[in-house]
Amino acid sequence: MAIDFTLAPEHDEIRTRVRTFVRETIAPAMAALEEGGKTPPREEYLRVIFDLRGKAQAEGLWLPHMPEEWGGMGLGHVALAMFQSEAAKTRIGPWVFNCAAPDEGNMHTLLHWANDEQKEKYLKPLLKGVKSSCFAMTEPEVAGSDPTLIRTRAVKDGDEWVINGHKWFISGARRASFAILIARTEDDVPEGSRGANTAFLIDIPQEGWNDVREVETMHGSTGHSEIVITDLRVPDGQILGGRGNGHRLGQYRLGPARLAHCMRWISQAETALDMMVDRSLNRYSHGSLLAEKQGIQWMIADSAMELYQCKLMVLHAAYKIDRGEDFRTEVSMAKHFVANSLNRIIDRAIQVHGALGYSTDTPLVGMFQHARWARFADGADEIHQMRIAERTIQAYRDTGTTRDATGGLPL
Amino acid sequence: MAIDFTLAPEHDEIRTRVRTFVRETIAPAMAALEEGGKTPPREEYLRVIFDLRGKAQAEGLWLPHMPEEWGGMGLGHVALAMFQSEAAKTRIGPWVFNCAAPDEGNMHTLLHWANDEQKEKYLKPLLKGVKSSCFAMTEPEVAGSDPTLIRTRAVKDGDEWVINGHKWFISGARRASFAILIARTEDDVPEGSRGANTAFLIDIPQEGWNDVREVETMHGSTGHSEIVITDLRVPDGQILGGRGNGHRLGQYRLGPARLAHCMRWISQAETALDMMVDRSLNRYSHGSLLAEKQGIQWMIADSAMELYQCKLMVLHAAYKIDRGEDFRTEVSMAKHFVANSLNRIIDRAIQVHGALGYSTDTPLVGMFQHARWARFADGADEIHQMRIAERTIQAYRDTGTTRDATGGLPL
Amino acid sequence: MAIDFTLAPEHDEIRTRVRTFVRETIAPAMAALEEGGKTPPREEYLRVIFDLRGKAQAEGLWLPHMPEEWGGMGLGHVALAMFQSEAAKTRIGPWVFNCAAPDEGNMHTLLHWANDEQKEKYLKPLLKGVKSSCFAMTEPEVAGSDPTLIRTRAVKDGDEWVINGHKWFISGARRASFAILIARTEDDVPEGSRGANTAFLIDIPQEGWNDVREVETMHGSTGHSEIVITDLRVPDGQILGGRGNGHRLGQYRLGPARLAHCMRWISQAETALDMMVDRSLNRYSHGSLLAEKQGIQWMIADSAMELYQCKLMVLHAAYKIDRGEDFRTEVSMAKHFVANSLNRIIDRAIQVHGALGYSTDTPLVGMFQHARWARFADGADEIHQMRIAERTIQAYRDTGTTRDATGGLPL
Amino acid sequence: MAIDFTLAPEHDEIRTRVRTFVRETIAPAMAALEEGGKTPPREEYLRVIFDLRGKAQAEGLWLPHMPEEWGGMGLGHVALAMFQSEAAKTRIGPWVFNCAAPDEGNMHTLLHWANDEQKEKYLKPLLKGVKSSCFAMTEPEVAGSDPTLIRTRAVKDGDEWVINGHKWFISGARRASFAILIARTEDDVPEGSRGANTAFLIDIPQEGWNDVREVETMHGSTGHSEIVITDLRVPDGQILGGRGNGHRLGQYRLGPARLAHCMRWISQAETALDMMVDRSLNRYSHGSLLAEKQGIQWMIADSAMELYQCKLMVLHAAYKIDRGEDFRTEVSMAKHFVANSLNRIIDRAIQVHGALGYSTDTPLVGMFQHARWARFADGADEIHQMRIAERTIQAYRDTGTTRDATGGLPL
Repeated sequence: MAIDFTLAPEHDEIRTRVRTFVRETIAPAMAALEEGGKTPPREEYLRVIFDLRGKAQAEGLWLPHMPEEWGGMGLGHVALAMFQSEAAKTRIGPWVFNCAAPDEGNMHTLLHWANDEQKEKYLKPLLKGVKSSCFAMTEPEVAGSDPTLIRTRAVKDGDEWVINGHKWFISGARRASFAILIARTEDDVPEGSRGANTAFLIDIPQEGWNDVREVETMHGSTGHSEIVITDLRVPDGQILGGRGNGHRLGQYRLGPARLAHCMRWISQAETALDMMVDRSLNRYSHGSLLAEKQGIQWMIADSAMELYQCKLMVLHAAYKIDRGEDFRTEVSMAKHFVANSLNRIIDRAIQVHGALGYSTDTPLVGMFQHARWARFADGADEIHQMRIAERTIQAYRDTGTTRDATGGLPL
Repeated sequence: MAIDFTLAPEHDEIRTRVRTFVRETIAPAMAALEEGGKTPPREEYLRVIFDLRGKAQAEGLWLPHMPEEWGGMGLGHVALAMFQSEAAKTRIGPWVFNCAAPDEGNMHTLLHWANDEQKEKYLKPLLKGVKSSCFAMTEPEVAGSDPTLIRTRAVKDGDEWVINGHKWFISGARRASFAILIARTEDDVPEGSRGANTAFLIDIPQEGWNDVREVETMHGSTGHSEIVITDLRVPDGQILGGRGNGHRLGQYRLGPARLAHCMRWISQAETALDMMVDRSLNRYSHGSLLAEKQGIQWMIADSAMELYQCKLMVLHAAYKIDRGEDFRTEVSMAKHFVANSLNRIIDRAIQVHGALGYSTDTPLVGMFQHARWARFADGADEIHQMRIAERTIQAYRDTGTTRDATGGLPL
Repeated sequence: MAIDFTLAPEHDEIRTRVRTFVRETIAPAMAALEEGGKTPPREEYLRVIFDLRGKAQAEGLWLPHMPEEWGGMGLGHVALAMFQSEAAKTRIGPWVFNCAAPDEGNMHTLLHWANDEQKEKYLKPLLKGVKSSCFAMTEPEVAGSDPTLIRTRAVKDGDEWVINGHKWFISGARRASFAILIARTEDDVPEGSRGANTAFLIDIPQEGWNDVREVETMHGSTGHSEIVITDLRVPDGQILGGRGNGHRLGQYRLGPARLAHCMRWISQAETALDMMVDRSLNRYSHGSLLAEKQGIQWMIADSAMELYQCKLMVLHAAYKIDRGEDFRTEVSMAKHFVANSLNRIIDRAIQVHGALGYSTDTPLVGMFQHARWARFADGADEIHQMRIAERTIQAYRDTGTTRDATGGLPL
Repeated sequence: MAIDFTLAPEHDEIRTRVRTFVRETIAPAMAALEEGGKTPPREEYLRVIFDLRGKAQAEGLWLPHMPEEWGGMGLGHVALAMFQSEAAKTRIGPWVFNCAAPDEGNMHTLLHWANDEQKEKYLKPLLKGVKSSCFAMTEPEVAGSDPTLIRTRAVKDGDEWVINGHKWFISGARRASFAILIARTEDDVPEGSRGANTAFLIDIPQEGWNDVREVETMHGSTGHSEIVITDLRVPDGQILGGRGNGHRLGQYRLGPARLAHCMRWISQAETALDMMVDRSLNRYSHGSLLAEKQGIQWMIADSAMELYQCKLMVLHAAYKIDRGEDFRTEVSMAKHFVANSLNRIIDRAIQVHGALGYSTDTPLVGMFQHARWARFADGADEIHQMRIAERTIQAYRDTGTTRDATGGLPL
């Protein structure tokens, strides 16, 4: 036991296999699909992806985040960091390996909180890749970052619950066969209590679950649904994780899910940095290559430093999760910093590309438009800053130094 | 072998001993010396420090960075990170444990480059703590960051070299009994060659070595000498490391020395963050404690994040040195980022302290004035940014990705 | 004559009329057109706009930037700042008043550089609003910021010129009935000379002018054409402004055109700040309104300060243009700062809106996607920084102080 | 009446006279005094300054901020901006012209709030330059930025008030013959009321006014006293401006005083920028002059832009004061931005100077150490950010747009 920054050899071997599969199997299939810059029909697109999923599963590159007894690869979070970042070199990679949001987080959640029956009905089809799911918490009327404000309400009526409410930015809702829905169930809790909410398993489609539109966003109009819930009735057995545990369940889910986002974002940021350097070596202006200019070098150096820091942070947070230690501060710091670095690095890459960077002739515009979401996803910047500060203050109160809030590291 | 962020148990034990020695032996002695805010006379000050050094040596807390066969503790750089940061909780700590700049770097240099005779004469007294040394490279007339410009010149005259030149910011020169001096010796090298300079061992005092003043700086007037060298003659045997190796010797020395600076700076930054939090918990304004205000929380959160990143970077760079891998990019990134974080964190701590922070009633002003130097010491910010960019570009050229320039990490 | 920050009364009166027209005539027409969030068919859209143009012309709110003898309002640039910023409160405003890019800049250019015949044929229809135009300079293969690199080439062949080359990001090309095209004509000029290029008036459509696609960008696919020019022949009389004057003509055009951009961007930034404040007053989270949180207040305060600075800068640069003084440094500073402030302010407004800000339910996403272009339009950030630095250095060289480069103001 | 950025001709003439006096009279006298880098004895120093004051008064360059009927030059604030910035090209300039803090602000205060008797006794000697004064508000125990917290208390005892309390950072207290002291007098006001405090005129020395030390700060140990007030008795007639008006009086004083600081800081920032450019033209490294490197150009360009903005902001705020309009938002924005720009510009100048910049061989270190105070003086950064945000929010509430909070300018 001593400081070490290397992968176990068996994980290094997996890394090579993922990288090879992405390069030699996924990339050519996607290139063929989108040949000539065309957007393929949705059915064709899905057919190719499901074909790739079959190949991935056959190669044993499937469910890296799940235990072996559930058909997964049983990787810890450090090994997952490697897996997710390799997978995310192509946008659909995590989907192909069945470790994409929100299914990935939902699988963790079901594994931990579901009873056997629920696992059988909801978890198993997810693991097989034959169904998909969504997570319905965010509401348009109240700050998503403060779950004590949730207004969707479930009222007990005999053995059933009657649910009314309004959700949006429910990713993947149109493809999902079920949702994990967070609703307020408890009234006799103190103001601001974190014990007021409960999670429900909602089959989709069903009466009362109205997917009124896909919210159009900066990156287009697919994927994030707005849901109006009207007198939706579910039996008591659809409660997931027990009454009043909705907030705890959400928090449990979010830690690793946030970190998995970071792993994929790092991969995107690396692609942007590679493109920035490539461009700087091929563009000449005002007497020299861009790569030779001090200011452009600063953009490259800042990006390299930030990406290096992102990687170190994610590895360390993953290590803490794997050790069963309290990882909340580390994950908040990683989430905040990686999301912001991603935006900065892509923005610099665009700037170095000039007008070309503003066109969709390179993938940078798409990356930029997706990246902006990272500063809201799974907790806006401001929430993480608040949490980091609170925990730094608490560490100082508890121990007389902030050290435990800066990683608890050996210096 | 797998990702691990813990110290070996034997290093953890050393950590406790250093921390205890700093708290229970050094701190009370310094407090007694400076009781009532007075500056003690220099002789009294030195007497106390040498007394502390004796105690440290007796405790086996001595020369952490030197091999055991040379009387040191034989710590690798990872363990050193822990040692230096604990030691630097008090300004004189590294001096007490005989691991302070510039002696620390000079010991490394002599151990690697000196012949047996030179080690006997120069290295051994340093190790015993009975002599001290300085490193004379920087010149006022030319950019210190570009050693190809060095103008101090040594000319062969029979078995001797005659040296003329001008140096400044030579730290510790007045206490030193010898200097490692870098001078230009070679003319028949290409323009801009890194093979033009040679290192010499210069006994102090001697004729031709004129210490004309201590340069007054932002943090006061002690420590950094300006030296005019006039017809200083040294025998050929005073060359250290061979003709034309002056630049290589300087570079060899600088890597670990830069990282040792970072270890000590992190310790200072942590003290500043602790003070910032303490103040925010004790100052009330406009309706709430500072600790409860969102903006002040951002200052705390940003500082905690940066300090966390500093620690991760230094640990990783130290690990690469210990493994014998190329550590230059990592050390440049750590040096640049830690120096700048140090300045930002102290600046925020001052701001949170208000007028008190601008007074010398707290140590923050002194820390601020010293910290500004960190952005020049052992390579100005701009040099490290240039090197980081160059190596990022080179990594891309060599491998088609920048990955090797962002730590070569497993994600 | 003395410092004054007010409009002349007659301009204040115009301001009120523009504001009223935008609110009471343009806004309702657009609202009707886009009712229910639908995108109207292009013909319908154009019909409404041309109807509005007729009304604006009837109101005397037409061609604010043109002299009265040419049918314009004869406003100076200070008065234009007010006009453009009021007009830009709705995206189509400047188009309705016939002062939108690129026609606006092209009118200036033709007025100054065209001969009588060219004015008759090209300028007059622009002024009447019956034709539109484009400006074709940027090329995909070379840095648009360095016009000495232009590769499109015109070769004299008898009384005609034969032009071959490749242009892109030619805004408005598909609506234009003519282009001002910049091509290289001179070979016997020194390397890097600014006298190598010539401007041509090109009727569209014509053989050899191939509009191969509209470049899809971050804000969609309309407006910026890619043009392949193949053996396009024009008579010698189509030269605009004389042989070798292409660069001078471009520069002449760009100053006021850049400032006009700034005027419109300020209007957008103000809208974003208004929305940010509105949201902060209506969103509650973690115990208080956003408007009551210190960090959100910082976002508001920073935005207000930047917007204030933008306005002062644009007013001062406009004043210098009106006085016939050298305005290049001031316009570069305004262009750079306003473009970047615009991006920052919109970004903060999005962040304060949370997920809603990332959706297209508010105009912020569209504003954000357009705003990114501002950092390239009419000179990328890096070009303006270079020019500002060069002029600051030159001022110091010429006068011993940088004062002339910071506005030449009375302090 | 219309936008104009020029000085009235009579003010332009004054500008030339101040500049000439600073260059030809003050600068040589100070150079002689400090020849050879020596610090002259205090008496010698004062003798030279009072000699210079006599000359300035004889030249009619005296009390620029006071009305002519009180022996001043009767300049408005716009003209003062020019005067103060010229004067501040040498540190003692404002003192020589008798327009330095805190006397300058105290003169304004006395002119506005004092009764005839008080003017005779306190104002007149200040105007003549035979006495000096201080302003005693800040307390160590409570946030200076929140005057509702003031703890120094004056209790009525017959016709006298008995004052007890603790003040610090009282600039110029040791030279002062009187203080304007703010103390709490009212208890029957609502919590947080701004009507609880009263201003008193305190003759110095007197019993109960104990100047216990000069607080040592980042820039040395002179000037800022700590005062312990113990049973200090003053007659009722020493109240300045009426009971309960202490806060209003302080606010009245601070607006113009803050702006006068800005005028002087701009002058310092300009000196730093001039030095930065000079150095960049004279330092060669890694193949080119610093002035030719893109990154250094960015430092120059950013500094020029910021300084330009500072100047525009101060001119506009001064204009608003001169017009009798509400200037609080503009002064807060100027104060915040100029103080921070000053710090940034000096910091960049130091960085460009390398090790020399860290030495006291140039004035930059002294400027840097003084500049840090600017972020606290007359309201810390955070206070001004809060006020700017509050007024921006208020403007939006009142008018539906933030426009009035961004200068109320004609665009």
